[in-house]
Amino acid sequence: MSSLVFIILISISVSIALGYALYNFYSVKKLDEGSQRMQEIALAIRQGANTFIRNEYRSLSLIMLIVASILTVFISWQMAISFILGAVMSGTAAWVGLKIATYCNVRVSNVARTSKSLAETLKVAYRGGSVMGLSVGAFALLGILLVYLCFGLFDGQIAAVMEGRERLNFLGFPIPFTVTLSGYALGCSLIAMFNRVGGGIYTKAADMGADLVGKTEAKIAEDDPRNPATIADNVGDNVGDVAGLGADLLESYVGAILASAILACELYRSHASPISAELLRRMIIYPVVFAALGLLACVLGTMSLLVKPKLSTKAHRELNLSTWISASLSLIFGLGLTAWLFKSRPDLDLKSAQFRLGFISPWLAACFGVMAGIAIGLLAEYYTSYSYKPTLSVAESTLEGTALTITSGMSVGMRSTMAPVIVLASAIYGSYSVAGIYGVAIAAMGMLSFVTATVSVDTYGPIADNAGGISEMSSLDAEVRIITDTLDAVGNTTAAIGKGFAIGSAALAALSMMVSYLYAATPAAEVISLNLVQPISLVGAMIGAALPFLFSGFLIDAVSKTARTMVNEVRRQFKEISGVLEGQTQPDYKRCIEISSDGALREMRKPALISVLFPVCTGFIFGPKFVGGVLIGATLSAIMLALYTGNAGGAWDNAKKYIEIGGLAGSERGSEAHNAAIIGDTVGDPLKDTVGPSLDILIKIMSVSSLIAVSIFSHYNLLDYLLSKW
Amino acid sequence: MSSLVFIILISISVSIALGYALYNFYSVKKLDEGSQRMQEIALAIRQGANTFIRNEYRSLSLIMLIVASILTVFISWQMAISFILGAVMSGTAAWVGLKIATYCNVRVSNVARTSKSLAETLKVAYRGGSVMGLSVGAFALLGILLVYLCFGLFDGQIAAVMEGRERLNFLGFPIPFTVTLSGYALGCSLIAMFNRVGGGIYTKAADMGADLVGKTEAKIAEDDPRNPATIADNVGDNVGDVAGLGADLLESYVGAILASAILACELYRSHASPISAELLRRMIIYPVVFAALGLLACVLGTMSLLVKPKLSTKAHRELNLSTWISASLSLIFGLGLTAWLFKSRPDLDLKSAQFRLGFISPWLAACFGVMAGIAIGLLAEYYTSYSYKPTLSVAESTLEGTALTITSGMSVGMRSTMAPVIVLASAIYGSYSVAGIYGVAIAAMGMLSFVTATVSVDTYGPIADNAGGISEMSSLDAEVRIITDTLDAVGNTTAAIGKGFAIGSAALAALSMMVSYLYAATPAAEVISLNLVQPISLVGAMIGAALPFLFSGFLIDAVSKTARTMVNEVRRQFKEISGVLEGQTQPDYKRCIEISSDGALREMRKPALISVLFPVCTGFIFGPKFVGGVLIGATLSAIMLALYTGNAGGAWDNAKKYIEIGGLAGSERGSEAHNAAIIGDTVGDPLKDTVGPSLDILIKIMSVSSLIAVSIFSHYNLLDYLLSKW
Repeated sequence: MSSLVFIILISISVSIALGYALYNFYSVKKLDEGSQRMQEIALAIRQGANTFIRNEYRSLSLIMLIVASILTVFISWQMAISFILGAVMSGTAAWVGLKIATYCNVRVSNVARTSKSLAETLKVAYRGGSVMGLSVGAFALLGILLVYLCFGLFDGQIAAVMEGRERLNFLGFPIPFTVTLSGYALGCSLIAMFNRVGGGIYTKAADMGADLVGKTEAKIAEDDPRNPATIADNVGDNVGDVAGLGADLLESYVGAILASAILACELYRSHASPISAELLRRMIIYPVVFAALGLLACVLGTMSLLVKPKLSTKAHRELNLSTWISASLSLIFGLGLTAWLFKSRPDLDLKSAQFRLGFISPWLAACFGVMAGIAIGLLAEYYTSYSYKPTLSVAESTLEGTALTITSGMSVGMRSTMAPVIVLASAIYGSYSVAGIYGVAIAAMGMLSFVTATVSVDTYGPIADNAGGISEMSSLDAEVRIITDTLDAVGNTTAAIGKGFAIGSAALAALSMMVSYLYAATPAAEVISLNLVQPISLVGAMIGAALPFLFSGFLIDAVSKTARTMVNEVRRQFKEISGVLEGQTQPDYKRCIEISSDGALREMRKPALISVLFPVCTGFIFGPKFVGGVLIGATLSAIMLALYTGNAGGAWDNAKKYIEIGGLAGSERGSEAHNAAIIGDTVGDPLKDTVGPSLDILIKIMSVSSLIAVSIFSHYNLLDYLLSKW
Repeated sequence: MSSLVFIILISISVSIALGYALYNFYSVKKLDEGSQRMQEIALAIRQGANTFIRNEYRSLSLIMLIVASILTVFISWQMAISFILGAVMSGTAAWVGLKIATYCNVRVSNVARTSKSLAETLKVAYRGGSVMGLSVGAFALLGILLVYLCFGLFDGQIAAVMEGRERLNFLGFPIPFTVTLSGYALGCSLIAMFNRVGGGIYTKAADMGADLVGKTEAKIAEDDPRNPATIADNVGDNVGDVAGLGADLLESYVGAILASAILACELYRSHASPISAELLRRMIIYPVVFAALGLLACVLGTMSLLVKPKLSTKAHRELNLSTWISASLSLIFGLGLTAWLFKSRPDLDLKSAQFRLGFISPWLAACFGVMAGIAIGLLAEYYTSYSYKPTLSVAESTLEGTALTITSGMSVGMRSTMAPVIVLASAIYGSYSVAGIYGVAIAAMGMLSFVTATVSVDTYGPIADNAGGISEMSSLDAEVRIITDTLDAVGNTTAAIGKGFAIGSAALAALSMMVSYLYAATPAAEVISLNLVQPISLVGAMIGAALPFLFSGFLIDAVSKTARTMVNEVRRQFKEISGVLEGQTQPDYKRCIEISSDGALREMRKPALISVLFPVCTGFIFGPKFVGGVLIGATLSAIMLALYTGNAGGAWDNAKKYIEIGGLAGSERGSEAHNAAIIGDTVGDPLKDTVGPSLDILIKIMSVSSLIAVSIFSHYNLLDYLLSKW
């Protein structure tokens, strides 16, 4: 069949999603902002967020230009273009999300105030969230569409195109055509890393600063306007939980789609088990069209909630329903696509791509991915919700003091790694069994095919949270705060599942990229292997396994350092500016915003640079076998740390919430036990919101940048040179 | 040359060491115990320790008998015998250590009281410690000597013996002769695991219980006799830090020696690069004789301190001097041995064993091991001593409250993993380059060749610590306490280096065992590989990497659970028994001892069973490739976690000490900052003293038990069966 059908399909899907996002954007923006005080606060938050993102993007654009120049010189200008395109798409999506979130928050607060209806408020908040969700899906696919169009990946003669475009770089090494795809993924990943790390530092420094002095020392409530760090805290929610999270999931989405396409190309190039040119074409197109259909499914799923004339008061059920509609439609559309593309034809030798169960194989792999994502999410829910034993045990340990609160949270986090890893391992083994290594990549893509729905819910949460903050600071009725708090809490379960998808897909995508890397590093005649009995690979794996620890240590440090400055500033204001604690003088919010912003901009570079440069630099010194080891070591260790930090942080957070809703006898607000719980929560904050999500990005950036650089360092590295002399 | 020379050499060395240990034991025992009160307290501690070890050994002997029966049925009775022998040797060494420590502590306290001389007190404490050190070295080698003698490993016709003894088990699978060696190692490892885990739970539960209520809530000093948990705490020091540590290092020592011998056998059996029968004989004998010479060197090193008529007051320098004499003599003796055994001869084709630099190759590997051990120890010192930036930063963060104290300690721990891993990786690459995979095992052996000196210093620490406790509880002069505290602190640097050896050698020995496992799992005609591109191995590696996290979570939980019971008991006694806090009534020490003891006995089983059963059971289900993945995943992850937990715990501990010596302005004893530091220390306690050391044992037990079981499950496992049907 002609590729035109697919091009049109993707274009339609992207246009509909973008149109719907635009419609929702303006529907939200035209709502009333509420009282003078509310408008002032919202403006302060919006300005803080805008200033930060502007400064961030300014410093990023320089970095991006430098990287693009290096890529042009050493690899190819085509790749540099797709790299820039990726960065622009990711940056735009995050920016749109930040815009809508900072418009939507105050409007949600106002709707709650005027309508006093949970259902009405839910609708506005979710409409705001959907703008981010739709942007993530649409911009990601728009960029991929452009890359595919520019570089001939829709071409009927794709195989010929691939080989024709394989060119030598200025050092005379052949640069595989697939780097254009890797370039796009790298652009998205780099922006995601900066947004995630920068946002994570920003939000957690503000949050910790506000809590440590405000809640623990001055004993004032969360979001109390007397707290100088409170505006920064609310800006942080937007910067970290909206822009950071959006860029993160966009990166995962793009990573999963392109990992599948790249693997298809590598399977074609590998002479060990070559696939036919027509099969290659279909395997390249499949993940993109699957994702486009998923985007359409999400538009329908989102509409199903928004057009409903009367929502029930069970917000939880409404959100889940919308997500499950999106997910089911994605899989149903995907099944049709799979049948259409891979139905039996003489020129498609499905066995050559290891599709062991015929045309349905890749679809089954996608289903395994979705199932694994849900299972990992439910397990996260089990370990971190106060409805279950693990978090309850953390809550109970608060009665024995802070130290045991910390150790029991650590223990929950550590124990929580095994079950999701077993799920992930089963998904890998299952999808590999039905559709080979391509199946593993498709499993990641399947997990993320309805990413739009996931991001919408994930964004809705911080919007509701911010609305709560604005209500508190504007001294609105307690009733309003109850509505926003309920909405905030409701998003949590769905968000937990979204987290399962994020980490599961990161692991699968990173592993697929790693296999692509091995293909690229191995001469075409040989069978790929990653043999850890070879000392150089073993040594690489050891150092690789230490890398996520080093990276996490740096991140925690970055947050702590900025938080310490914040703590001192808040203490200073309480002491030096008279009347602040009594609520008579307005504190200096601006200074706190500056501290968070400066800290984030300063500290985000080191971790981001490590993730890109480490595999590349060591590749030039120790060669491709070493980097292969680094990749597997880092992936293994990052998965464990991400699960550990995420779940330990979640358990502490909810143990505190459990105590605050009065779940634990003998630990009312302000008691020793409550204090211990707050400290646990504060310790967990940087772990679950900065470290955990950044680790997902780390392993993907590392594998993408190795994949790009390997075409050079497999020919030219110090160790091979020395060994040849010895 | 005849093997008789070596048999005599080992026997002499073992006899001298045992004789010297006996002499030191009675020299200590005949000293005066001091006042009535001191004798009472010492008796209570001694009885507590004896009761615990008796109960532990009773429940262990049953487990050992069950394991031995299973081994007899499924593998061979020879192996069961060496297994029992290993357990008996390890158990005896730990028991001797516990005896001397509980005799020595009060005598150290009394010498300090009567002589008021630091040098005199040091001598007694070190003499006590040396009994443990010498027992560890001597009993370990005695057992190996017996195993070698019984099973013909000294035989001139060793190769023929090996093949003649290879027999079929009752299922008809050939059982390699090397399992007799693995059996001995498994016996030592299992005892070590129980002693380490049991002792770790005992000591940390008592310690946390005593600190949490005593120091934090009741604000009384450490070792205050009014604290009901104080005797249990002092018993715990003996059970955990003496018996647990001794069994742990004995296991490492045996593991490293036997890993080298087993690898030599596997190299011989592997048809890929077969070594000659004579070379095999020498490679089997080499590590044992090297260790025996090391033991002699340590006798001389220990004597050099003890016979000196007048010690300087710089205790630190005296201890280091003695250790360095032992280490240097070990290496010098070893060099002679290496030249003697591997000097050029026509029937020794050194190249076949990958000795790339001729006869000196294995000695160089041993030197790399020693250098790596020292470097790792110094790095641990850097990250955990308050003379350097990392720990100082933790100390400073106490000023910003508990939460930042915890996060900064975590960050130090995480960042501290990279440097030692690089050192370890270099040692692996270096020793592999000079002497092949045998070199990696020899590097571990080299590190531990002077283990006796290390254990002596490591045991001397808790003896001095206990002496301090007894002084405090008997209300001796403050001067006495200053002497014991100084001695306790002095041991720390040397102990840090000992820790570096423990973790470094564990990693190297586990990797060598893993390679032996791969040899055993691979048909003789094929080249061994551990290819993580194979999904079954990859999946194994993922699950393996999660295992140390699960294991650590269980351990932390076990400690926390027991500590919680202890906290409640101490609180109860303060409340219910009138006059305890005023010092008028004696608290119920016995009840606290029972809580620790019961908790330790109850909780130590699960982690120990996991470590033995997990690789064996999954082997029977998923086959040898899966277990290969599990071993590498677990080893990588355990190394990182061991470094992380050890260094984070050490940093918190010393940050607290720094504050207590008044190093930090604005944080005197009893301040908020000091409180935060105590909480940090309490959180770190189970991490550094229970989790970290147990992880070292975990990876060795896992690889030994896989190595033993693989001869069966490589022929018979569920997955292969199912795949053959599919």
